[in-house]
Amino acid sequence: MPSISKKGANMPQSPIRKLVPFAEKAKQKGIKVYHLNIGQPDIATPDAALNAIHNYNEKVIEYSHSAGMLSYRKKLAAYYKKIDINITADDIIVTAGASEALLFAFQSIMDPEDEVIIPEPFYANYNGFAVNAGIKVTPIFSSIETGFALPPIADFEKVITPRTKAILVCNPNNPTGYLYSEEELQTLRELVLKYDLYLIADEVYREFCYDGNVHHSTMHLKGIENNVILIDSVSKRYSACGMRIGCMISKNKELMATAMKFAQARLSPPTYGQIASEAALDTPDSYFTEVIKEYKQRRDVVVEAINKMEGAFCPNPKGAFYVVARLPIDDSDKFCQWLLEDFNFEGKTVMLAPASGFYSTKGLGKDEVRISYVLNVNDLRESMRLLEQALKVYPGRTL
Amino acid sequence: MPSISKKGANMPQSPIRKLVPFAEKAKQKGIKVYHLNIGQPDIATPDAALNAIHNYNEKVIEYSHSAGMLSYRKKLAAYYKKIDINITADDIIVTAGASEALLFAFQSIMDPEDEVIIPEPFYANYNGFAVNAGIKVTPIFSSIETGFALPPIADFEKVITPRTKAILVCNPNNPTGYLYSEEELQTLRELVLKYDLYLIADEVYREFCYDGNVHHSTMHLKGIENNVILIDSVSKRYSACGMRIGCMISKNKELMATAMKFAQARLSPPTYGQIASEAALDTPDSYFTEVIKEYKQRRDVVVEAINKMEGAFCPNPKGAFYVVARLPIDDSDKFCQWLLEDFNFEGKTVMLAPASGFYSTKGLGKDEVRISYVLNVNDLRESMRLLEQALKVYPGRTL
Repeated sequence: MPSISKKGANMPQSPIRKLVPFAEKAKQKGIKVYHLNIGQPDIATPDAALNAIHNYNEKVIEYSHSAGMLSYRKKLAAYYKKIDINITADDIIVTAGASEALLFAFQSIMDPEDEVIIPEPFYANYNGFAVNAGIKVTPIFSSIETGFALPPIADFEKVITPRTKAILVCNPNNPTGYLYSEEELQTLRELVLKYDLYLIADEVYREFCYDGNVHHSTMHLKGIENNVILIDSVSKRYSACGMRIGCMISKNKELMATAMKFAQARLSPPTYGQIASEAALDTPDSYFTEVIKEYKQRRDVVVEAINKMEGAFCPNPKGAFYVVARLPIDDSDKFCQWLLEDFNFEGKTVMLAPASGFYSTKGLGKDEVRISYVLNVNDLRESMRLLEQALKVYPGRTL
Repeated sequence: MPSISKKGANMPQSPIRKLVPFAEKAKQKGIKVYHLNIGQPDIATPDAALNAIHNYNEKVIEYSHSAGMLSYRKKLAAYYKKIDINITADDIIVTAGASEALLFAFQSIMDPEDEVIIPEPFYANYNGFAVNAGIKVTPIFSSIETGFALPPIADFEKVITPRTKAILVCNPNNPTGYLYSEEELQTLRELVLKYDLYLIADEVYREFCYDGNVHHSTMHLKGIENNVILIDSVSKRYSACGMRIGCMISKNKELMATAMKFAQARLSPPTYGQIASEAALDTPDSYFTEVIKEYKQRRDVVVEAINKMEGAFCPNPKGAFYVVARLPIDDSDKFCQWLLEDFNFEGKTVMLAPASGFYSTKGLGKDEVRISYVLNVNDLRESMRLLEQALKVYPGRTL
């Protein structure tokens, strides 16, 4: 029997995936599981998008342009113009989700053994894309004490080597919800200029900023237009994860010509998803006003509840729909498994994401979990009540 | 300005892509261009698929399972059972087209510098996927004289090294239309058993076999269940290229568990495409009877016309919707560009694919072109008339 590749063996599996069988078993036992572990919002996809698909009447579902439909890219450029990002349709490659955009970016700028610096905790699948491309992730530590603010510039400089090709940030951040300030982005600007690095910015949660805070994009930074690679997606913006439509954006012509070769090899992004995503751009602002109001309420419920629990702590993040909370537990992997395997309160339990999976440095995040507030306020309140009960009886409790 | 990767620089661009600007210029000059260069069929997508999308009423377009929707995989398994391929839903990973399936397969079984043997001419994007995965393609020559039959086993054995991990065949073949016989597949079976190799089979044109010939699948081969990787797609079968739905299939559990990690990192295949593809499985057999009848007529028009042209030759392939023809020309790249740039007959010309792009060995295919018969019979007749005229006046004519 032929063997699998070393690369395949090294592909990481997110710790959430490992928990899925335990969640299934719990459900089989009749236990109700509240899923706070996922990034799939429960918010309705905008009608404009759904209607466009119902009304789509082409008789042949054809390949689109490898960079995505021109009409969609033009309308996307207009969307970005409204948020002061000045690009044209030619600066955009539409992809199968932000996932493919990240793969194109990694492959276009890094060879095997090259390095990308990422503040940790970070979105776990970045590790998978790095293994896929054969590159190395160099994590630098951001602390729950600062609410996961950008680490000091000295921390970046300490780990920069001749093989460092890029810095990757997610803003607002998954898993922490942290929203980078304009000053922090200026710091990154100086860093990439000084070392001639790419700055990859995953800004898929752009619309979800709370308490009157506004999002600053890496695309707003002056003088590093050839360094910035924007990664985007409709998945979270329009609650349309299944459309698998993202994009890679850069003003760097050589880079985009290179990425296009990867795009052409896979022919085109999904046609239906593009039709829906183009129509979604007509979604009225009121949709976002409502969604943001809803998410803010949910965040408040979670943050307030966590901080009332004995020995627990949670920053109050300004964006996305996640928080990373510190809990009085020995090991978040064990705790999250225990929640599904051994715990229930009144026949109910919660599924959380162990934060260990969001750290690249071994041993970090052991007393932290990521909570996605993708359930309604009542379910979140109930989930927090269950978590509080669980912390009282968990055998690995550290209080 | 930061540099691009060596990998990116090495990504090949298909020679067809290089011709696109010339086709655009020809159209701007008012010349009608018949496109015989593409793999996008003009056949209508089955109503069952289109209607499923019109009637899809979910309010949130969610991620599906990373391996694809279970209902779709179950129905796919039933489709395969009908053609004597015995697999279950667990043996299938649904992908964003056959492209992603090939990438998953390459990454799961090969590390950088590992080798895959492919009979040439072959589908040009295999080269792109190989560069993407950092692996090496070892071509072995198949000849137009034999109609592009499987090269003798000795030719494979000559190039097998300790780094050879797989053999990749496309059956029926793009670009040649060649349909492998049962005996040829048995030869491959012995080869992969003897050297413990994977056998990757791209069978996306399975339905398109002519003159009463039947398709034999690598999945029918006994005793190499752990070696065979089937690559499939709905793009050609249902004329639904834009859905971006393919799949990777294997009975090898370790391999599939490995591929699943790549699948999980990118979250899920497109939801809309899966809904349509699942419904497409209800397409009545009469659809294929009609389509096959149509393609056979088209093939006959092209093959007959080519073989009547002075100095030209074309085998009569049994499958897919392509032929590779030998023409009395000095250089197919130059000829195909000349057709768009310098030639027209009564204000019309044809766009063909230079076969050089389908050979990995430099210098091969210089007097060959690939013709896709994806236009109706009348347009094909007219295209052949234009080609005949072109060959009479082409300055690089070798007769």
